[in-house]
Amino acid sequence: MLGRLYERENCSAARALELIGERWSLLIIRLAAFAGTTRFSEFQSGLGIATNVLSDRLEGFVAADLMRRQQIADGTGQEYVLTPRGHELAVVVVALTEWGDRWAAPKGPPIVFEHAGCGGSLHLIVDCAGCGHSVPPEEISAMPGPGATAQQRRRRAR
Amino acid sequence: MLGRLYERENCSAARALELIGERWSLLIIRLAAFAGTTRFSEFQSGLGIATNVLSDRLEGFVAADLMRRQQIADGTGQEYVLTPRGHELAVVVVALTEWGDRWAAPKGPPIVFEHAGCGGSLHLIVDCAGCGHSVPPEEISAMPGPGATAQQRRRRAR
Repeated sequence: MLGRLYERENCSAARALELIGERWSLLIIRLAAFAGTTRFSEFQSGLGIATNVLSDRLEGFVAADLMRRQQIADGTGQEYVLTPRGHELAVVVVALTEWGDRWAAPKGPPIVFEHAGCGGSLHLIVDCAGCGHSVPPEEISAMPGPGATAQQRRRRAR
Repeated sequence: MLGRLYERENCSAARALELIGERWSLLIIRLAAFAGTTRFSEFQSGLGIATNVLSDRLEGFVAADLMRRQQIADGTGQEYVLTPRGHELAVVVVALTEWGDRWAAPKGPPIVFEHAGCGGSLHLIVDCAGCGHSVPPEEISAMPGPGATAQQRRRRAR
Protein backbone atom coordinates (compact mmCIF):
# COMPACT_ATOMS: atom_id res chain seq x y z
CA MET A 1 0.00 0.00 0.00
CA LEU A 2 2.26 2.72 -1.32
CA GLY A 3 -0.32 5.30 -2.28
CA ARG A 4 1.36 8.50 -1.28
CA LEU A 5 4.46 8.00 -3.35
CA TYR A 6 2.57 7.45 -6.54
CA GLU A 7 0.03 10.24 -6.31
CA ARG A 8 1.71 12.15 -9.12
CA GLU A 9 1.50 9.13 -11.41
CA ASN A 10 -1.48 8.78 -13.74
CA CYS A 11 -0.61 5.22 -14.66
CA SER A 12 -2.47 1.95 -14.27
CA ALA A 13 0.75 0.05 -13.51
CA ALA A 14 1.50 2.51 -10.71
CA ARG A 15 -2.02 2.12 -9.34
CA ALA A 16 -1.67 -1.64 -9.37
CA LEU A 17 1.66 -1.31 -7.55
CA GLU A 18 -0.01 0.86 -4.91
CA LEU A 19 -1.95 -2.25 -3.98
CA ILE A 20 0.54 -5.04 -4.53
CA GLY A 21 3.94 -3.34 -4.90
CA GLU A 22 5.29 -4.81 -1.72
CA ARG A 23 7.60 -7.72 -1.42
CA TRP A 24 5.16 -10.29 -0.04
CA SER A 25 1.95 -9.25 -1.73
CA LEU A 26 2.23 -11.17 -4.98
CA LEU A 27 3.49 -14.27 -3.18
CA ILE A 28 0.36 -14.19 -1.03
CA ILE A 29 -1.79 -13.77 -4.15
CA ARG A 30 0.11 -16.64 -5.74
CA LEU A 31 -0.74 -19.04 -2.89
CA ALA A 32 -4.36 -17.95 -2.88
CA ALA A 33 -4.79 -18.25 -6.65
CA PHE A 34 -2.75 -21.38 -7.35
CA ALA A 35 -2.37 -23.39 -4.15
CA GLY A 36 -5.89 -22.99 -2.79
CA THR A 37 -4.55 -21.36 0.36
CA THR A 38 -7.21 -19.58 2.43
CA ARG A 39 -6.26 -19.80 6.13
CA PHE A 40 -3.96 -17.43 7.94
CA SER A 41 -1.92 -20.34 9.32
CA GLU A 42 -1.47 -21.82 5.83
CA PHE A 43 -0.23 -18.53 4.39
CA GLN A 44 2.08 -18.20 7.36
CA SER A 45 3.61 -21.66 7.07
CA GLY A 46 3.66 -21.50 3.27
CA LEU A 47 5.68 -18.30 3.18
CA GLY A 48 7.48 -18.18 6.52
CA ILE A 49 6.37 -14.56 6.77
CA ALA A 50 6.11 -12.70 10.10
CA THR A 51 2.57 -12.87 11.46
CA ASN A 52 2.22 -9.10 11.88
CA VAL A 53 3.29 -8.51 8.26
CA LEU A 54 0.94 -11.21 7.00
CA SER A 55 -1.91 -9.79 9.04
CA ASP A 56 -1.27 -6.31 7.61
CA ARG A 57 -1.22 -7.62 4.06
CA LEU A 58 -4.38 -9.72 4.37
CA GLU A 59 -6.31 -6.91 6.05
CA GLY A 60 -5.03 -4.53 3.38
CA PHE A 61 -6.24 -6.89 0.68
CA VAL A 62 -9.68 -7.01 2.31
CA ALA A 63 -9.77 -3.21 2.49
CA ALA A 64 -8.77 -3.00 -1.18
CA ASP A 65 -11.39 -5.55 -2.21
CA LEU A 66 -8.76 -8.02 -3.41
CA MET A 67 -9.91 -10.56 -0.83
CA ARG A 68 -12.91 -11.09 1.39
CA ARG A 69 -12.80 -12.52 4.90
CA GLN A 70 -15.41 -15.11 5.73
CA GLN A 71 -16.26 -17.70 8.35
CA ILE A 72 -15.11 -21.20 7.49
CA ALA A 73 -18.15 -23.42 7.00
CA ASP A 74 -17.10 -25.91 9.70
CA GLY A 75 -16.87 -23.13 12.27
CA THR A 76 -13.12 -23.49 12.82
CA GLY A 77 -12.29 -19.87 12.12
CA GLN A 78 -11.95 -17.41 9.27
CA GLU A 79 -10.55 -17.65 5.81
CA TYR A 80 -9.41 -15.22 3.14
CA VAL A 81 -10.74 -15.73 -0.37
CA LEU A 82 -9.78 -13.81 -3.51
CA THR A 83 -12.43 -11.58 -5.05
CA PRO A 84 -12.64 -11.40 -8.87
CA ARG A 85 -10.60 -8.19 -8.64
CA GLY A 86 -7.94 -10.06 -6.66
CA HIS A 87 -8.08 -13.22 -8.73
CA GLU A 88 -7.22 -11.31 -11.91
CA LEU A 89 -3.85 -10.46 -10.39
CA ALA A 90 -3.03 -14.11 -11.09
CA VAL A 91 -2.06 -12.93 -14.57
CA VAL A 92 0.65 -10.72 -13.04
CA VAL A 93 1.94 -13.75 -11.13
CA VAL A 94 1.98 -15.74 -14.38
CA ALA A 95 3.93 -12.94 -16.08
CA LEU A 96 6.50 -12.86 -13.28
CA THR A 97 6.73 -16.64 -13.29
CA GLU A 98 7.29 -16.87 -17.02
CA TRP A 99 10.02 -14.26 -16.83
CA GLY A 100 11.63 -16.11 -13.93
CA ASP A 101 11.37 -19.44 -15.77
CA ARG A 102 13.16 -17.96 -18.72
CA TRP A 103 15.83 -15.97 -16.96
CA ALA A 104 16.20 -17.27 -13.41
CA ALA A 105 15.40 -20.99 -13.30
CA PRO A 106 18.63 -22.93 -14.01
CA LYS A 107 16.99 -26.27 -13.14
CA GLY A 108 13.89 -25.63 -15.26
CA PRO A 109 10.48 -24.27 -14.25
CA PRO A 110 9.52 -25.30 -10.69
CA ILE A 111 5.88 -25.08 -11.66
CA VAL A 112 4.04 -25.01 -14.96
CA PHE A 113 0.60 -23.64 -15.68
CA GLU A 114 -2.08 -25.83 -17.16
CA HIS A 115 -5.59 -25.19 -18.38
CA ALA A 116 -7.92 -26.61 -15.74
CA GLY A 117 -10.38 -27.34 -18.53
CA CYS A 118 -8.28 -29.40 -20.93
CA GLY A 119 -4.84 -29.88 -19.35
CA GLY A 120 -3.09 -27.95 -22.11
CA SER A 121 -0.02 -25.91 -21.20
CA LEU A 122 -0.55 -22.18 -20.77
CA HIS A 123 1.60 -19.28 -21.84
CA LEU A 124 1.13 -15.55 -21.80
CA ILE A 125 1.19 -13.86 -25.15
CA VAL A 126 0.90 -10.23 -26.14
CA ASP A 127 -1.78 -10.50 -28.79
CA CYS A 128 -2.18 -7.93 -31.55
CA ALA A 129 -5.79 -7.26 -32.52
CA GLY A 130 -4.54 -5.78 -35.80
CA CYS A 131 -2.35 -8.43 -37.38
CA GLY A 132 -3.21 -11.31 -35.04
CA HIS A 133 0.43 -11.98 -34.22
CA SER A 134 2.03 -12.63 -30.84
CA VAL A 135 4.18 -9.55 -30.31
CA PRO A 136 7.69 -9.57 -28.74
CA PRO A 137 8.43 -6.99 -26.02
CA GLU A 138 10.50 -4.76 -28.28
CA GLU A 139 7.50 -4.19 -30.57
CA ILE A 140 5.21 -2.89 -27.80
CA SER A 141 4.57 0.86 -27.95
CA ALA A 142 2.78 2.85 -25.25
CA MET A 143 0.47 5.62 -26.47
CA PRO A 144 -1.83 8.05 -24.62
CA GLY A 145 -5.19 6.42 -23.90
CA PRO A 146 -8.65 7.86 -23.15
CA GLY A 147 -7.64 8.50 -19.51
CA ALA A 148 -4.40 10.36 -20.32
CA THR A 149 -3.83 13.79 -18.83
CA ALA A 150 -3.19 16.78 -21.08
CA GLN A 151 0.42 16.72 -19.89
CA GLN A 152 0.77 13.09 -20.92
CA ARG A 153 -0.55 13.92 -24.38
CA ARG A 154 1.86 16.83 -24.77
CA ARG A 155 4.81 14.76 -23.62
CA ARG A 156 4.02 12.10 -26.17
CA ALA A 157 3.57 14.65 -28.96
CA ARG A 158 7.05 16.12 -28.50
CA MET B 1 16.89 -7.01 -4.33
CA LEU B 2 15.22 -9.09 -1.65
CA GLY B 3 17.22 -12.28 -1.99
CA ARG B 4 17.55 -13.38 1.60
CA LEU B 5 13.87 -13.46 2.38
CA TYR B 6 13.03 -15.71 -0.52
CA GLU B 7 15.83 -18.27 -0.23
CA ARG B 8 13.39 -20.93 0.90
CA GLU B 9 11.21 -20.38 -2.15
CA ASN B 10 11.78 -22.51 -5.25
CA CYS B 11 9.56 -20.37 -7.42
CA SER B 12 10.18 -18.36 -10.55
CA ALA B 13 7.81 -15.60 -9.45
CA ALA B 14 9.74 -15.28 -6.19
CA ARG B 15 13.02 -15.13 -8.10
CA ALA B 16 11.66 -12.42 -10.34
CA LEU B 17 10.51 -10.51 -7.25
CA GLU B 18 14.01 -10.79 -5.78
CA LEU B 19 15.09 -8.57 -8.65
CA ILE B 20 12.14 -6.27 -9.13
CA GLY B 21 9.96 -6.72 -6.03
CA GLU B 22 10.58 -3.23 -4.81
CA ARG B 23 8.25 -0.31 -5.10
CA TRP B 24 10.12 1.67 -7.76
CA SER B 25 11.68 -1.07 -9.82
CA LEU B 26 8.86 -1.75 -12.26
CA LEU B 27 8.19 1.95 -12.73
CA ILE B 28 11.82 2.40 -13.76
CA ILE B 29 11.52 -0.56 -16.14
CA ARG B 30 8.31 0.96 -17.49
CA LEU B 31 10.02 4.25 -18.39
CA ALA B 32 12.95 2.44 -19.96
CA ALA B 33 10.79 0.08 -22.00
CA PHE B 34 7.96 2.40 -23.05
CA ALA B 35 9.15 6.02 -22.78
CA GLY B 36 12.65 5.57 -24.17
CA THR B 37 14.16 6.89 -20.95
CA THR B 38 17.89 6.22 -20.61
CA ARG B 39 19.47 9.06 -18.59
CA PHE B 40 19.64 9.25 -14.82
CA SER B 41 18.21 12.77 -14.85
CA GLU B 42 15.26 11.67 -17.00
CA PHE B 43 14.40 8.79 -14.68
CA GLN B 44 14.71 11.17 -11.75
CA SER B 45 12.43 13.83 -13.18
CA GLY B 46 10.03 11.27 -14.62
CA LEU B 47 9.45 9.56 -11.28
CA GLY B 48 10.31 12.17 -8.67
CA ILE B 49 12.33 9.48 -6.93
CA ALA B 50 15.14 10.27 -4.47
CA THR B 51 18.50 10.26 -6.25
CA ASN B 52 20.10 7.80 -3.84
CA VAL B 53 17.24 5.33 -4.29
CA LEU B 54 17.34 5.70 -8.07
CA SER B 55 21.09 5.22 -8.09
CA ASP B 56 20.74 2.03 -6.02
CA ARG B 57 18.08 0.64 -8.34
CA LEU B 58 19.94 1.40 -11.57
CA GLU B 59 23.21 -0.03 -10.25
CA GLY B 60 21.29 -3.07 -9.01
CA PHE B 61 19.77 -3.51 -12.46
CA VAL B 62 23.24 -3.36 -14.01
CA ALA B 63 24.53 -5.94 -11.51
CA ALA B 64 21.54 -8.19 -12.27
CA ASP B 65 22.03 -7.83 -16.04
CA LEU B 66 18.67 -6.10 -16.49
CA MET B 67 20.39 -2.96 -17.79
CA ARG B 68 23.78 -2.02 -19.09
CA ARG B 69 25.50 1.29 -18.48
CA GLN B 70 27.15 2.87 -21.47
CA GLN B 71 28.66 6.15 -22.60
CA ILE B 72 26.29 8.38 -24.52
CA ALA B 73 27.53 8.75 -28.09
CA ASP B 74 27.75 12.56 -27.90
CA GLY B 75 30.02 12.34 -24.87
CA THR B 76 27.56 14.05 -22.51
CA GLY B 77 27.55 11.29 -19.92
CA GLN B 78 26.24 7.82 -19.31
CA GLU B 79 22.97 6.13 -20.04
CA TYR B 80 21.17 3.01 -18.85
CA VAL B 81 19.78 0.69 -21.49
CA LEU B 82 17.66 -2.43 -20.95
CA THR B 83 19.24 -5.75 -21.81
CA PRO B 84 17.04 -8.43 -23.44
CA ARG B 85 16.63 -9.95 -19.95
CA GLY B 86 15.44 -6.58 -18.67
CA HIS B 87 13.30 -5.75 -21.68
CA GLU B 88 11.23 -8.91 -21.23
CA LEU B 89 10.02 -7.53 -17.90
CA ALA B 90 7.93 -5.19 -20.06
CA VAL B 91 5.38 -8.02 -20.14
CA VAL B 92 5.03 -7.78 -16.34
CA VAL B 93 4.43 -4.03 -16.71
CA VAL B 94 1.76 -4.74 -19.34
CA ALA B 95 0.09 -7.26 -17.00
CA LEU B 96 0.05 -4.74 -14.14
CA THR B 97 -1.22 -2.05 -16.47
CA GLU B 98 -4.04 -4.15 -17.84
CA TRP B 99 -5.13 -5.07 -14.32
CA GLY B 100 -5.00 -1.41 -13.30
CA ASP B 101 -6.93 -0.36 -16.41
CA ARG B 102 -9.66 -2.80 -15.55
CA TRP B 103 -9.88 -2.27 -11.81
CA ALA B 104 -8.29 1.07 -10.97
CA ALA B 105 -8.72 3.51 -13.85
CA PRO B 106 -12.04 5.35 -13.36
CA LYS B 107 -11.29 7.77 -16.23
CA GLY B 108 -10.20 5.05 -18.63
CA PRO B 109 -6.74 3.77 -19.48
CA PRO B 110 -4.09 6.52 -19.26
CA ILE B 111 -2.03 4.68 -21.82
CA VAL B 112 -2.75 1.98 -24.33
CA PHE B 113 -0.34 -0.47 -25.90
CA GLU B 114 0.04 -0.67 -29.65
CA HIS B 115 1.95 -2.93 -31.95
CA ALA B 116 4.89 -0.90 -33.24
CA GLY B 117 4.69 -2.91 -36.45
CA CYS B 118 1.06 -2.42 -37.49
CA GLY B 119 -0.55 -0.06 -34.95
CA GLY B 120 -2.99 -2.73 -33.73
CA SER B 121 -4.04 -2.66 -30.10
CA LEU B 122 -2.30 -5.14 -27.83
CA HIS B 123 -3.69 -7.26 -25.03
CA LEU B 124 -2.23 -9.97 -22.86
CA ILE B 125 -3.90 -13.31 -23.14
CA VAL B 126 -3.26 -16.59 -21.37
CA ASP B 127 -3.09 -18.90 -24.34
CA CYS B 128 -3.80 -22.62 -24.08
CA ALA B 129 -1.60 -24.78 -26.32
CA GLY B 130 -4.14 -27.57 -25.95
CA CYS B 131 -7.48 -26.13 -26.96
CA GLY B 132 -6.24 -22.82 -28.39
CA HIS B 133 -8.53 -20.75 -26.20
CA SER B 134 -7.74 -17.66 -24.20
CA VAL B 135 -8.06 -18.82 -20.59
CA PRO B 136 -9.60 -16.78 -17.73
CA PRO B 137 -7.68 -16.60 -14.44
CA GLU B 138 -9.94 -19.04 -12.62
CA GLU B 139 -9.05 -21.79 -15.11
CA ILE B 140 -5.29 -21.55 -14.55
CA SER B 141 -3.84 -24.47 -12.57
CA ALA B 142 -0.27 -24.63 -11.27
CA MET B 143 1.41 -28.04 -11.45
CA PRO B 144 4.95 -29.20 -10.53
CA GLY B 145 7.36 -28.56 -13.41
CA PRO B 146 10.72 -30.08 -14.33
CA GLY B 147 12.48 -27.87 -11.77
CA ALA B 148 10.18 -28.76 -8.83
CA THR B 149 11.71 -30.02 -5.60
CA ALA B 150 10.70 -33.40 -4.18
CA GLN B 151 8.82 -31.54 -1.46
CA GLN B 152 6.87 -29.55 -4.06
CA ARG B 153 5.87 -32.79 -5.79
CA ARG B 154 4.72 -34.37 -2.53
CA ARG B 155 2.75 -31.32 -1.53
CA ARG B 156 0.95 -31.33 -4.86
CA ALA B 157 0.24 -35.07 -4.67
CA ARG B 158 -1.54 -34.82 -1.33
